[in-house]
This record gives sequence, structure tokens and C-alpha cells, in this order.
Amino acid sequence: MGLLHEDRLFPADEKTRAIARRLYAGIKELPIVSPHGHTQAGWFARNEPFPDPVTLLVQPDHYIFRMLYSQGISLEELEISNKPVKDPRRVWRIFASNYHLFRGTPSRLWLDYAFENLFGLTERLSAKTADHYYETIESRLSTKEFLPRALFERFNIEVLATTDSPLDSLKDHEEIRESGWKGRIVPTFRPDPVVDPAFDQFAKNVERLGELTGENVTSWRGYLRALEARRRFFKSLGATATDHGHPSARTADLSESKAEWLFGKVLEGEADAEHQELFRAQMLTEMARMSLEDGLVMQIHAGSVRNHNAQLFAKYGRDMGADIPGPTDYVHALKPLLDRFGNETSLSIILFTLDETTFGRELAAGGSLSLSATRAAVVVL
Amino acid sequence: MGLLHEDRLFPADEKTRAIARRLYAGIKELPIVSPHGHTQAGWFARNEPFPDPVTLLVQPDHYIFRMLYSQGISLEELEISNKPVKDPRRVWRIFASNYHLFRGTPSRLWLDYAFENLFGLTERLSAKTADHYYETIESRLSTKEFLPRALFERFNIEVLATTDSPLDSLKDHEEIRESGWKGRIVPTFRPDPVVDPAFDQFAKNVERLGELTGENVTSWRGYLRALEARRRFFKSLGATATDHGHPSARTADLSESKAEWLFGKVLEGEADAEHQELFRAQMLTEMARMSLEDGLVMQIHAGSVRNHNAQLFAKYGRDMGADIPGPTDYVHALKPLLDRFGNETSLSIILFTLDETTFGRELAAGGSLSLSATRAAVVVL
Amino acid sequence: MGLLHEDRLFPADEKTRAIARRLYAGIKELPIVSPHGHTQAGWFARNEPFPDPVTLLVQPDHYIFRMLYSQGISLEELEISNKPVKDPRRVWRIFASNYHLFRGTPSRLWLDYAFENLFGLTERLSAKTADHYYETIESRLSTKEFLPRALFERFNIEVLATTDSPLDSLKDHEEIRESGWKGRIVPTFRPDPVVDPAFDQFAKNVERLGELTGENVTSWRGYLRALEARRRFFKSLGATATDHGHPSARTADLSESKAEWLFGKVLEGEADAEHQELFRAQMLTEMARMSLEDGLVMQIHAGSVRNHNAQLFAKYGRDMGADIPGPTDYVHALKPLLDRFGNETSLSIILFTLDETTFGRELAAGGSLSLSATRAAVVVL
Repeated sequence: MGLLHEDRLFPADEKTRAIARRLYAGIKELPIVSPHGHTQAGWFARNEPFPDPVTLLVQPDHYIFRMLYSQGISLEELEISNKPVKDPRRVWRIFASNYHLFRGTPSRLWLDYAFENLFGLTERLSAKTADHYYETIESRLSTKEFLPRALFERFNIEVLATTDSPLDSLKDHEEIRESGWKGRIVPTFRPDPVVDPAFDQFAKNVERLGELTGENVTSWRGYLRALEARRRFFKSLGATATDHGHPSARTADLSESKAEWLFGKVLEGEADAEHQELFRAQMLTEMARMSLEDGLVMQIHAGSVRNHNAQLFAKYGRDMGADIPGPTDYVHALKPLLDRFGNETSLSIILFTLDETTFGRELAAGGSLSLSATRAAVVVL
Repeated sequence: MGLLHEDRLFPADEKTRAIARRLYAGIKELPIVSPHGHTQAGWFARNEPFPDPVTLLVQPDHYIFRMLYSQGISLEELEISNKPVKDPRRVWRIFASNYHLFRGTPSRLWLDYAFENLFGLTERLSAKTADHYYETIESRLSTKEFLPRALFERFNIEVLATTDSPLDSLKDHEEIRESGWKGRIVPTFRPDPVVDPAFDQFAKNVERLGELTGENVTSWRGYLRALEARRRFFKSLGATATDHGHPSARTADLSESKAEWLFGKVLEGEADAEHQELFRAQMLTEMARMSLEDGLVMQIHAGSVRNHNAQLFAKYGRDMGADIPGPTDYVHALKPLLDRFGNETSLSIILFTLDETTFGRELAAGGSLSLSATRAAVVVL
Repeated sequence: MGLLHEDRLFPADEKTRAIARRLYAGIKELPIVSPHGHTQAGWFARNEPFPDPVTLLVQPDHYIFRMLYSQGISLEELEISNKPVKDPRRVWRIFASNYHLFRGTPSRLWLDYAFENLFGLTERLSAKTADHYYETIESRLSTKEFLPRALFERFNIEVLATTDSPLDSLKDHEEIRESGWKGRIVPTFRPDPVVDPAFDQFAKNVERLGELTGENVTSWRGYLRALEARRRFFKSLGATATDHGHPSARTADLSESKAEWLFGKVLEGEADAEHQELFRAQMLTEMARMSLEDGLVMQIHAGSVRNHNAQLFAKYGRDMGADIPGPTDYVHALKPLLDRFGNETSLSIILFTLDETTFGRELAAGGSLSLSATRAAVVVL
């Protein structure tokens, strides 16, 4: 009977389920437009086979190893690091033996989908089936139907956006464009490393931004020009959007002299937490201004408390899965930005918000479009 | 088949739908008691025909024009102002062409109800049907069945409460009473203009309050007596309740000397945001005290962040639809008021709250009546 | 047809109801493990009959009398106090006449269950049936099938945990153990009276802690040793857990010298609200450290605003039902504790949280186990 229920995610009630089926039938064959693809341009630039099931499915997915870690399995055992996995079959067996932990999670939902639809596996992953899974997946990954570009085409993807540092050379994106392959992969401008003073190596990152653009980034004006230049560069390689991962949605609209002073403070590493927050707030408004000029859609991922696990962070650094959503007050936080640009019909802002916030509720209840005159679409997660 | 589904708003599931139908059948013929009617006494005092569909349905409804505005339609195009609409048919066509924007909103739900049940329209409003709608509605509005008093009777309204400034002469209400017409329309005492220091023209409003009552409103005692006098006047014209639109539910219970000092400060326009908030907080407690004396039920609409759109506010002033709910902590906010009056069985307070607040949840879960001994009913919106 | 619907609490939809029935059938005959039993060890130590329906069902249940109080019935009328009820039949009649107030509440759900299944009553409790109920219940309570131990066995309870002050002698628990009766009743270590500086008689309680343990509790080290000693004593009588009722989940990880200074301050009664909160925060982290050493599971009941009704509190003291949940930010609050002990696989923490908090949502959505490596189970209420 397979791993998947035909009506998974649909309502239990027959009446609403029939409506869900009808709606889904109308869109299931449409091509995929993926604005936040969690993929790397390098996969498609080099088009090399994915080496093994662990390197593809376990090592890069913090939802997977975070769950295993929470049950007492160390990251060392799982060989989580930037280096190649030495004994992928051993790691796979650990994952398989603990697959029951993923019951009811979105992770299992899409893993089972991939297992059944891509690899033809129909018996649940477990200690017993671990080796069969490993060998089946590994052998398929070496075929040309499973090369990254082939999968992109098979999945009927119309466009896929990656998320990139403003310091990235985007050479993988350039390589894809020059290769003649028709798949549309575009970068997204995620300036956190150069606009968030709490980011690792912030001052160095800003210095590098200056080198890349030839601007004098020790001045506020030069710094803004450098950001504008990088946005233009991203746009030249197809970017349609920016993305901002801030701890809160706070925005500010400081006078130029105040902003200049604040920039000096954060650059010299003398800003306390409140001034760092204020700088990020000001930068969201600056980014909105630039979006009005260059047309990039602005995405705000606010409210995640990142790197919550101090020991994991100390040992492994950022983005190791120890993130947890915190409450965010969008209503007051966005006001300074909206007071300045909220009535511009050509500005598009996408907020990624959790539905339990007041704002999320208001939006979910149909108020979504009424915050201002902007064409702000809101994704309630 | 018409615009309305017979079972709209009922559950999809057959079993619970049958229960909903049974419950609804038991109450659908009951007269309407409307404690917060969003209507004007003048309609019923003058009993003149509503002039045209736009003046009736678009111009006074900020839910309608806020949605249109959010999609880039200017308020000038929609002729939103205090003046008569010059080209109502043109505005109606804009509204009709954008009626699809209201899919899934409460606005469409009640508009379709009115279109079908009052005006006999059964094809959806759209650019195509705009003129047919306009002409049908306009022609009906000129008949005597559609005069305000006739509609009041046809809707089987037992009592309808308007919401009025304490500075209002209530002459429309007096006129209704003297006209011999039997419809019961009562005013509601909404003192925001004279108790909220952030209200436009606060000091002038207080001065006017003094003129109306003959009290010396430059003294705290005189100011309170003036409020008591206006409440008595409202009550003499049928008022049964007060209503308070505060940014938060904060209450305070200051000593008389502290309250006196604070009143002086806000009256001279020297109060900062925190002192203005403290004054509103104190005034909720004063209003509770007066309610205990004169028996008016107290309604608190707290937590709406008003006039969020700075440009709209600058151009059009208050209440133009740019409101959005913010989080409100009722539990701590109401404590000072409840510590003083919360155990009085003759005090009735109605809180209008959103269900996503902790308080709303607690109340919805059956704890509603347990906050205190007051007969506080709570409306969870 | 009785008081109970066979499928109460199950979904209305037939499909999901069938699944609920199947799941329930699989567990309904299992013995009860009750980690937070709201019972007193003395009942089982003395094994005396419950005297009458009011003393059993009304007097000790603040959910019951809080609802009645909210409708204007005084606690005097209900004879709520620590003394024996003088006229239980009169109180019962008041309760019965107001039983309709409990429609839709969990209180009625379990009362009806007890009425029907324990006492064979099948007509709803009301003014009319009040005396019949009273007499039926009273007569059964005097039979040996209704002695506390007999009920414990009949209910198929495997283990029942009481909640006890660290100053309790636990002599009832000792008596049960020495009696030869096989029912497993264990104490739970709830140190609020000696770790919360806002607790009534805090300094006296700490002094008594010193007397019980022979430690010098005027020193920080001695105080901690005294707590460790009491935990050992509780554990020797079967305790498996601690329980902490704090106004927030805030934790701290102060240096020893800072903690020592703070302890001196709270002990001398000189700590303001912020310092009291910081002390409670530090004590949660100390309790986690002790749990790592002695293996007791740590339960945190955070976020309840206690004794909200000032008049009730002044007259009757703590725990009279005037509690109401407030918002709690677990994400930041728990970080200091988790930074220190969050990666210890042998620490178990149970958080009692309301599902409307961000944290509760995140947890309910499957993220529950990923906060850290601890085996933290989370109970979302």
C-alpha cells in the first residue's frame, strides 16, 4: 500500500476533502515556482551526482539532525560537519533506526514522498530496511536521471531561488547561465552578514563589501552605495528579491546624521544590543528604499531566536538547527518603515510570520491586504 | 441559485451542521438587540431616503474602502470625504470591478446578504452587473419601504444603540423621542474625546464639556462632575452603556492628589506618552466608579492600534480604517480597576477582545465568568 | 439515557471519531499513572470515609466555588474555609441550583462522570434533584467500597503523586508505607514556600528549613545543602519529581558571589520585585543542578498570575481560585538554565504550558523535542 496516503494533508471530513481534492487537481500539474529553495547553485553548476543518501538527506538538513540530537544522539556520531562523511552507511543506520521519532513531523512527510516517488521504496524506513534503502538510493543517485539538472526538469520547476550572501561571487550562478542549460536558477540578496552588527565577523564583512564594490565603506553614504551596487549585481544575474533574517521586525527611520553616527558605532564594535537592534531596524528601511528604486521584492523572516543552544553554537557555529520562533510585534515594529514607504504601490514586502501572532491572526482573518497600500503579500507559516 | 448558501457560516460536517441549524432555527425569528449599531441617530430622526448606493454602502464603511485602497485605489478616486459624493455611479463601478477582492471577507458576506434579501439581486456584483446593481438599489432606496424607519421595523429591531461623543447634543435622539415613532434608538456614552489626552483637540473638548455642564473643568473634581452630568444626560435619553476605545486595557487607581496633578498635566498639554496612558488608565477606573453609581454598563474596546497609516491620518484624520489589533495584556492591565471594584456584583463590564490573547483563550475555555464577582460578560471577537 | 455521551470529547466527524474510539479502546483499561494528583496523602493514611458530598466535591475545589462566586454567591454562603462545613445540605442545594452554570466546563464533565459511574445517578443535578443526589452520595460514602483506599484500587491506579511543601513532615506518606497497604502514593517536592521570596512567611519558612535539616540556612551554601537534604528525604519516601509554581519561567545563572549576595537580600526582606524574580530564576537553575544529581524529574508550572482577586486574597489567602494564566516567554526565559544544563541527556524537565504561547505552538507543531538534548517532555495544556 506504500508510504503515502493519497489524501494526506486533506481534511478528514468527506465534504471538505472533496473540495480540497478538486482544488488540488486544478493546480497539481502546474510548474513549481520556488522563491526560497534551500538549495545551492553549485549543484546545478557542476551537475555532479549526489554522492550518497546521507550527504543528500541527513548532513545538510538541520530538521533531521536536530531531532536525533534531541534524543541524545551526538552530532559527532552523525558526522555533522563541513567535511565529507566518512562512513555514510553507519550514519544512515542510526537515522533509519530512529525514523519512528519523525512520526507526525513535516520532515517525514516529505521524506516518505521522496522515498516512494523518487526511489520506489514502499516499506517504511527502519533498522530492518536501512540497508535496502541505502543501496537503492545510492544506486539511483549514480544514474543520469538523478543528476541535479535532470531532477530540476523532472520536478517541472519553472524557477528556483537560492539565498546568497552579498559577498558571494555568484560564480555558480554565472556558470549556470553560461552553460547553455535552460533551467532558471536565480540568486536572492540576503544582506544579513553586512547589515547585522551581531553577525559573525561583521566589520570584516563590511570591509570585504568595500573591496568588492570599490566604495569607501567606512562612510555611511559609501556603505549604502556599496549595498546598492551588490543589489544591482545580484539583479544582473536574475535576482528578483531580497531576504532579511532579523531577530525582530523592528524598523526605524533615523535622520541621516543619526544613521551615520550609528553606523560608525556598529562598525567600531562599540554598539550595545539596543544599538545593534536599532541599526538592523534602520537597515530594513534602507532596504525598502532601495527596493523602491531597483524593484526587488523584500522578504522579511523575523522573530526567530537563532542559535538558542549555546553549546552547539560554541562548537558548530550558526545555523545548526537550534532556532526557535519567538513572539514578534509586527504592528508597532513595521510602523516607521510603513510611515515612510507604506503607501508606495510599487513596493512589495513579504512577511514570513507564524499564525499565533496577533498580526498573523489579523492577516489570516482577511485583513492581510489592508495594512497599507503596498502590494504586501503575507505568507503565514 | 442566488448569492447566498443556506448553510453559510455553519460547519461543513453534517452532524455539527444539523446542530447548528437547530440552534439557529430557535433564535432566527427573535428581535434584534443591537448594542453597538454603527448607525447614526440622524437617519431615523430625519427619516429621509438614503441618496444612492455609494453614500449608503461605500462612503461610510472603512472596511470597504480600506480594502480597495490596499490594492492601489486612491481615496480621491473613491470620493471618500465628509462631502456629498459627486459621481456615485463612477465610484460604484470601481467598487463593482473590484468586488472579487472581498472573497472570503465578512464584508462580502453581509453585502451579499443585503443585495439578495433587500434588493432581490441574485447575480454576483461585478463590472458586468455594476449598472444593474446601481439602478436596482437606487430605485428601491427611493421607495417608502426603504426609508430608515421602515427598514428598522422590517429588520425587527427591538433596540439599537448608537455611539456618541459626550459633547454631542443628542438632538437627533431627542427628535426621535418627540416624533412619536416607536422605534427604540438609544445613545451610548463614548467619552474618548474628553478622557484621552491623545485625542485631537483634547483640551478644547474638555473646555466644551465645561460649557455644556456649567462645571469648572479646570479642576479635577469639576471635571469629574461634568462627566457625571453628561452621563446623566445620556441616561435621560435612554443610554444603557458607555464605550471606551483605548489603545490598551490599562487601568490605574491613583490617589486623589496624584490624579489631580496628572489631570493638570494633561490639560496643559505637557503630558508625555506614558502620562497620557496613565491618565486614560485612571479614567477607566473613574468610569467604573460612575457606572456603579448610575448603572451604565461599561464596554471596553481595547488594543486596537489606531490610525496606523501615518499618511492617511495626516490627510484624512481619525477612523479612516487604518486600525489593526495589537496584543493586549488584560490580566495585569485590569487588576487596579478590579482590585477596587471587581467584587461589586452590580458592576457590568463587557470586554471586546480578540481570541488570540491569553485572556481571550482563557475566557473562551470557560473561565470567562471567573475573573471576579462582577457580572462581566465578555465578548470574544 | 444517563448523563454521559459515550463519545464525549471525541470528534464529531465519523471518520476521526472512529480513529479516536480505536485509540481509546487500546488504552482505556491501562492502569492510571497520576503524576499530579490533587489529593492528600492523609486520605489514604487514615482511610476514613469522606464525610459528605460538600466536603468531598465543593469545599476543596476552587474551580467549583470560583464559578459560583463569579455569579454573586459569596464564599461565606458556601462555607469555604479550613473548618468543617456546618450545613452541607444547604451548601449542596446552592451548588445544585446553579449547576447549569457549569455547562460546557471541564468541571461538569468529570462531575457527571463521577455522578453516573460512581453513584449511579442518571438524572441531571438541579434544584429538583439536589436532595436525591445528596442522600445517594452520602449513603454511598459511608460504605467500605467508598473508603479512599478502596477507590484507589477500584480506579486501577498504579501510582499517585501528591504535591507537598518541603517543610512537610511527610508523616502521612510514612504511615501509608508502614501500614502494609500496597497502594503506591508518592510525594512531590514543591519548594515554592522556601524558594519564592514573595511567598507568605518566606523568611520563617527558610528558618524552619534550617531546623528540619540542621543546616545553617543563613548562608547560601547551607541553604542549598538544606534543600538537597529535603529532596533526599522526599526521595526516600518515593518522590520521583519536583514541581515549581513560578509567575514566569525565567531562569538565571548567576556567579556564586552574586547568588550569595542576592540570597542575603531576599532573606532580609529587602528585595524588590525584580530581585525576587531574579532569585526565583536562579533557584530554577539550582533545582536543575540538583535534579542532575539526584535524578528527580523537574516540573515547571509557569505563567499563572496567582491571587488575582485582591479582596479574596486579603480575606482567604493563597490558592483560592483567583488565578489566571498570563503570557510567558519560554524561549528567552529558559535560556540561562539550558545554556548550563540543556545538553545533559540525564535531565528531564516537564513544562506545563498553554497552547497559545509561541512556545506551545512550536512544541505542538512537532518541535517539542528539539529545544535541547535533554529528555524534556512538554505537556501542552
